[in-house]
Amino acid sequence: MNSTTASAAGLRRIDLNSDLGEGFGRWSLGDDAAMLSIVSSANVACGFHAGDPAAILDTVRAARDNGVAIGAHVAYRDLAGFGRRNMDVDSRDLIADVVYQIGALKGLAAAAGATVSYVKPHGALYNTIAHDERQATDVVKAIREVDPSLVLMGLAGSTVLRIGEEAGLRCVAEAFADRAYTPEGVLVSRREAGSVLHDAEQVAERMLQLVTEGTVTAIDGSVARVQADSICVHGDTEGSVAMARRVREVLTEAGIEIRSFIEGHNSGTANGGNK
Amino acid sequence: MNSTTASAAGLRRIDLNSDLGEGFGRWSLGDDAAMLSIVSSANVACGFHAGDPAAILDTVRAARDNGVAIGAHVAYRDLAGFGRRNMDVDSRDLIADVVYQIGALKGLAAAAGATVSYVKPHGALYNTIAHDERQATDVVKAIREVDPSLVLMGLAGSTVLRIGEEAGLRCVAEAFADRAYTPEGVLVSRREAGSVLHDAEQVAERMLQLVTEGTVTAIDGSVARVQADSICVHGDTEGSVAMARRVREVLTEAGIEIRSFIEGHNSGTANGGNK
Amino acid sequence: MNSTTASAAGLRRIDLNSDLGEGFGRWSLGDDAAMLSIVSSANVACGFHAGDPAAILDTVRAARDNGVAIGAHVAYRDLAGFGRRNMDVDSRDLIADVVYQIGALKGLAAAAGATVSYVKPHGALYNTIAHDERQATDVVKAIREVDPSLVLMGLAGSTVLRIGEEAGLRCVAEAFADRAYTPEGVLVSRREAGSVLHDAEQVAERMLQLVTEGTVTAIDGSVARVQADSICVHGDTEGSVAMARRVREVLTEAGIEIRSFIEGHNSGTANGGNK
Amino acid sequence: MNSTTASAAGLRRIDLNSDLGEGFGRWSLGDDAAMLSIVSSANVACGFHAGDPAAILDTVRAARDNGVAIGAHVAYRDLAGFGRRNMDVDSRDLIADVVYQIGALKGLAAAAGATVSYVKPHGALYNTIAHDERQATDVVKAIREVDPSLVLMGLAGSTVLRIGEEAGLRCVAEAFADRAYTPEGVLVSRREAGSVLHDAEQVAERMLQLVTEGTVTAIDGSVARVQADSICVHGDTEGSVAMARRVREVLTEAGIEIRSFIEGHNSGTANGGNK
Repeated sequence: MNSTTASAAGLRRIDLNSDLGEGFGRWSLGDDAAMLSIVSSANVACGFHAGDPAAILDTVRAARDNGVAIGAHVAYRDLAGFGRRNMDVDSRDLIADVVYQIGALKGLAAAAGATVSYVKPHGALYNTIAHDERQATDVVKAIREVDPSLVLMGLAGSTVLRIGEEAGLRCVAEAFADRAYTPEGVLVSRREAGSVLHDAEQVAERMLQLVTEGTVTAIDGSVARVQADSICVHGDTEGSVAMARRVREVLTEAGIEIRSFIEGHNSGTANGGNK
Repeated sequence: MNSTTASAAGLRRIDLNSDLGEGFGRWSLGDDAAMLSIVSSANVACGFHAGDPAAILDTVRAARDNGVAIGAHVAYRDLAGFGRRNMDVDSRDLIADVVYQIGALKGLAAAAGATVSYVKPHGALYNTIAHDERQATDVVKAIREVDPSLVLMGLAGSTVLRIGEEAGLRCVAEAFADRAYTPEGVLVSRREAGSVLHDAEQVAERMLQLVTEGTVTAIDGSVARVQADSICVHGDTEGSVAMARRVREVLTEAGIEIRSFIEGHNSGTANGGNK
Repeated sequence: MNSTTASAAGLRRIDLNSDLGEGFGRWSLGDDAAMLSIVSSANVACGFHAGDPAAILDTVRAARDNGVAIGAHVAYRDLAGFGRRNMDVDSRDLIADVVYQIGALKGLAAAAGATVSYVKPHGALYNTIAHDERQATDVVKAIREVDPSLVLMGLAGSTVLRIGEEAGLRCVAEAFADRAYTPEGVLVSRREAGSVLHDAEQVAERMLQLVTEGTVTAIDGSVARVQADSICVHGDTEGSVAMARRVREVLTEAGIEIRSFIEGHNSGTANGGNK
Repeated sequence: MNSTTASAAGLRRIDLNSDLGEGFGRWSLGDDAAMLSIVSSANVACGFHAGDPAAILDTVRAARDNGVAIGAHVAYRDLAGFGRRNMDVDSRDLIADVVYQIGALKGLAAAAGATVSYVKPHGALYNTIAHDERQATDVVKAIREVDPSLVLMGLAGSTVLRIGEEAGLRCVAEAFADRAYTPEGVLVSRREAGSVLHDAEQVAERMLQLVTEGTVTAIDGSVARVQADSICVHGDTEGSVAMARRVREVLTEAGIEIRSFIEGHNSGTANGGNK
């Protein structure tokens, strides 16, 4: 994995990412403004699970103004289900759907004088390509066809990251700040008790350990190795924004720079320690 | 009008354009394969009035294989109404909607190793911006923001072409092969008798006159001046395909080259006289 | 107007209505639970501008539990625009679209053991049929075709109420709690200063005057006659919920019963003065 | 199975059903007019996989005029995939989605002076509930909640028919005219060679045997028992319409009456032998 070195323990920098632009028309969701002062990467909805073009454009402009890297948060075409329902989309459609969404976001980014740097699949698609070879291959193919310089963000240890790397895409593994891990470094299923963490202080300390040690304390108390180039934080509730802010604070206070994994991004002060 | 010279009478070349890729999922519409052997420019649906991504990708690939220039056929978001219903879309939405659609098509074109060269608004949007200053300005702004090198195709003499040219866009005026004109060179309203022509031979001869003389015989028998860089033909019925083919034949036999208005396009033989 | 008598000054009862069920999938909007303890009629979204079926079903059940009458809040098919954009929908589509939405809500109401009692068009459709004869006729026709026992709610003095009454529909005129009126008893356009009122106490007192006197103080200080069988209050912001609650309180304290205009509805205590 | 008797061999009547109303807006699909002169039951799209309200209303009126029974062809919400893609819809949504669609069709039927008599799930939903207990239970629950007098049509021997009967719904089993069967009377998977039959004469003779003997010749040449109250025929291609017509002719010539399974339907001559 060519991201191994970059994500090894002892790093003095890490990326924070969050899902943004997830309103649609009259409906808004989450506190994008707050999150853009916390994260270094914005996973921007592309219209299939959320995101009308005008809202996306606003998000892209705000990300640009905050020096936050922009990623395409591609999804199944399922507005009513917010892209969270498994769908048996065939390869012909899945490839074209992903290309379409990336292209649309690139267009809006261009209109904002910004750039789409990476792709992070959303929801059910994200979960499916963590293990499904066929759909993972489709997503990788779509990214390569539309723009092979795009970075692919996915679950650490997932099938899609392996296939992406084999295909020559730069890949970035992410960890989830508020989730419990097994001793093997795999996410504990949401169906199990204790899978989601709610204490901001605890979560922040875990992420500090992740960045500095390359480990997290697993659900059974053992130490699990987890490699991650980015940490996913949420912004859809007040509590989650506060937790994300605390993660940033604790990392920053420990001298960790919050910075996008995209070269040339955030090289200035936009997302520096003064936030 | 900086397209005046190019569209002056006596031209030895002309562009033929048609709406393509207008299926959606299970539904198909028109004979795209036939039309791609007739026209030099394809107005490709972008998903808002028609066109699912996989179908658009197929169309873009076929256009590329036929050496046909690709245009973004942007529309109001109205799948149920096929983009033919007037909608009072505000500027914030309209600009972003147009950018989104152009971006999506650019993405699919990139995946096909092709390029989007121009933008032709569709249906109710097309008709509205022929006279509505605000929406015309929005469309022009959207095109300039996403890619100012895109050519804008619109109705000869329309508000949007004037605004586009003032804003520095290259503009292309089109005539409609199967429509009657007033003595002033304006389209006769579809609500009036005789506004739509059905005789393929007559239509073809009219278009030959348009290209060679810069005129058409108006509905009252007088001679009307009509400047056009492109002629719009249809492909959604068997009869319209036959008419389009006859237009091409009559022009070609008269030594007129059917060729995109995009520089560098169709310079070879892909769309030459051997079709 | 056969509703004249019922809405004459001096009434000891009045209906309060509000738009409910306006979420969609992941997105929620407004505080439906709070509003169901305030109003006697719920205008329930039917899926075209808002409202996924599961959310609608929840709303219908909650309305039933609160003894609140259920109305079909029919709209143009425009999820991205929340039904607020004018659309030039032809009669064939508009009639069928309205029937479809009413039928869908009737189905969900039946599943909840409840009944749809009335129809209140939403947003741009509401505004259009206040003056547009053709679309007003279409809406009336749709209601009569699907169920002529449905009551039509609309703007006091509007074209659609006149056409509805001529066609034999029972019609109910509504006033808007937070809007200014002209001396002629017509709403002051939202584009004009002072058209929207923000003081809950003032609004409540105005509505008390409306119910007891059949008048409101117009924007110029004169007294305008306004007949209304129902008062529209909003619930999409915290302030609007508080205002609606205050309207209810002031009316109730003055001995006015808040009660649906539907016979047999709210005859018990569900929406009585103890709320 | 309370439909056993009715579907036993030796019947002198059978129902023919087909999917109708599957256009959407500008797009049409299949020859509904032709099919309405062939079948006795119309599975009418309800808007989630196909069918805009105006087109549905036309179909419902035409079915009424032809004395053809009307069924709700409910589907997953997937216009782009025509309802053919498996979707992991949870119970809350699935129940409400099915109720919504049935209600909408009931509304349109009421507007046409007609009645919805049965429900036949479509596409991926149809296939899923043939074996999936949870989704089958949801569909049955939805039907019972909105109108327990509706008949449920499904695959012979399927999970949903068993659950439906246990819940007290009248159930109707269908066979597919153009499909091969295993010796056990189960459909041969479409993925296997020989699963779809193309010879109209052979298909018609098989269906005659099905009705008169309660058997079909299985793919291995053995005789399989298949009980069916209805035969599904297609109308989306010219060939399929011809095949459907031939099935009707052969059955009618053998003295079999083509007649809806709905009591009181087609008791007259509307769908008699003179078609």
